Amino acid sequence: MRLASFAAEGIERIGIALDEEAIVDLVDAWTRAGLPADRRPVDMTELALGGPALLADVERCARAAHACRDRAFPIDEIRFRPPMRRPSKILSVANNNSALAAVARKYVDEPAFFNKAPSSLIGHGEAIQIRSDYGLTHPEAELALVVGREAKFLTRENALDAVLGYTIINDVTSVGLKSEDTIVFANPGITPPPEGFEHGDMQLTYHARSKSTDTFGPCGPWLVTADEVPDPNALSVRVWLGGELVTEDSTANLMFDVPRVLEHATRYFTLLPGDLVHFGTAVRGGRYGLRDLDLLKREGPCEIEIEGLGRLSNPVERL
Amino acid sequence: MRLASFAAEGIERIGIALDEEAIVDLVDAWTRAGLPADRRPVDMTELALGGPALLADVERCARAAHACRDRAFPIDEIRFRPPMRRPSKILSVANNNSALAAVARKYVDEPAFFNKAPSSLIGHGEAIQIRSDYGLTHPEAELALVVGREAKFLTRENALDAVLGYTIINDVTSVGLKSEDTIVFANPGITPPPEGFEHGDMQLTYHARSKSTDTFGPCGPWLVTADEVPDPNALSVRVWLGGELVTEDSTANLMFDVPRVLEHATRYFTLLPGDLVHFGTAVRGGRYGLRDLDLLKREGPCEIEIEGLGRLSNPVERL
Repeated sequence: MRLASFAAEGIERIGIALDEEAIVDLVDAWTRAGLPADRRPVDMTELALGGPALLADVERCARAAHACRDRAFPIDEIRFRPPMRRPSKILSVANNNSALAAVARKYVDEPAFFNKAPSSLIGHGEAIQIRSDYGLTHPEAELALVVGREAKFLTRENALDAVLGYTIINDVTSVGLKSEDTIVFANPGITPPPEGFEHGDMQLTYHARSKSTDTFGPCGPWLVTADEVPDPNALSVRVWLGGELVTEDSTANLMFDVPRVLEHATRYFTLLPGDLVHFGTAVRGGRYGLRDLDLLKREGPCEIEIEGLGRLSNPVERL
Repeated sequence: MRLASFAAEGIERIGIALDEEAIVDLVDAWTRAGLPADRRPVDMTELALGGPALLADVERCARAAHACRDRAFPIDEIRFRPPMRRPSKILSVANNNSALAAVARKYVDEPAFFNKAPSSLIGHGEAIQIRSDYGLTHPEAELALVVGREAKFLTRENALDAVLGYTIINDVTSVGLKSEDTIVFANPGITPPPEGFEHGDMQLTYHARSKSTDTFGPCGPWLVTADEVPDPNALSVRVWLGGELVTEDSTANLMFDVPRVLEHATRYFTLLPGDLVHFGTAVRGGRYGLRDLDLLKREGPCEIEIEGLGRLSNPVERL
């Protein structure tokens, strides 16, 4: 099932895609399926909170939706919103790829996380807005998942059971702001200094501006339910900038795969229904490095396609 | 006005403090004030979303609340929740104090931010849980504010108008996890290397585990409305650990004050009603450095008092 948050005729909605061209409001499909109105989720967060029973209802709707084709919206007439409009958190894996791990002087034994602010999210088709003072700013094409139930202490074996579905996130990153938000201390005298860093200086970088500035989180177009993604660890990823294919890669090149990330994350963080987890950029392939994809200098749109999840496309607007 | 989120008799509530000993459920005060039930906020987020008109209603309730004393809950019989149970984001200022700025080899020109995950929040009286694998973990006593309206591009002059109120946050930080979540790259060949870092190595630290692990965000006890805090930049801050006064300081020692932080933040981030912003630790005073306050080794409770905002106390539980 492909689900979306969207606006049409001035009303905020969630709906079910019939095909590449039409989407049915869940309200219409729900009525057609004869389900009780008081159980109907009003947004994707309520859908995530409803668990497997509610998801089964939505699946009934999806089967009934084709009978509502006369009330469907043409996809090119809707405004996509991020599938999860207001997740309670976004948990983000940093530097999760085997190419970077290979060149690091000190890497991590388990995935390292940051938190991206939900206010950075925009939908498919909305503009990534870049100001010149952001400096070099590039896209990062990433697999994201939507959490389907409250989860702590998942294991690699059961982790995928907690996944409601998958989507695409463009983890837009400003190298310029990251550099500005770095503080350097001379060796603070804490022994031992980190491995690979024997001179002992401490460089602390804070990532909110570089990762969470408004519009730095394009997400969508769809939430594709987990049953349609049998193996999230083997999906091709492609990026186009201004129509040129600039990256070809695969989630198989991630250093830490989806179950391992979820196992490690939930030793520390309680995941809540509707939360997003995204997995870092697969960057091995392609003619360009990330730094060649400066959205301040190159023309958009920025398009990301992940196998089975659709194509997330966003124009780039320089302010 | 001092407002709180709390549970009593098994029901989740918000309420108004009468004094140090009693709190009235907003439902009771609202009824007593004769206000229409359909406008009553069910939680603090709805209160923040309601803007000045709703806040004026709640002020009417506060005046009526004393007539409800017979229905008030004794404070020692309630369970405090974090005042904002589920902010859409928490924006956190890093290393914001003049003592650290003075010793940095390279500091920042404007406040640097990270995002703390809302799932780390706990209420006054709830336990900070520490596992031995977290390594050195210390409290950070910080002023926090609650955003009262959607805000972008605030100026230093109008920034405080966007504040609904203030509270205390304990920005618990694990130095051990921070060190683990650091990746070091040899000089990546990007010129010029950051000032003060001429050897050119790049050390990237990701802060989610060290700052956002479950229970790392004690917050409360109260949301104190902004009218009761004429100058947030001159509040004394004191910390006790196991009953010993370990830090005495003031928000006057913050490098970047509240209006300046809000001005800079809202050049990049849209603040939404109910969001938390916290300001970094004032660490100048006291006999101990933060690293002497290891919650793995010292007995709790950890208590933070900020002038006019009450005292946030949390036991420390080692798992």
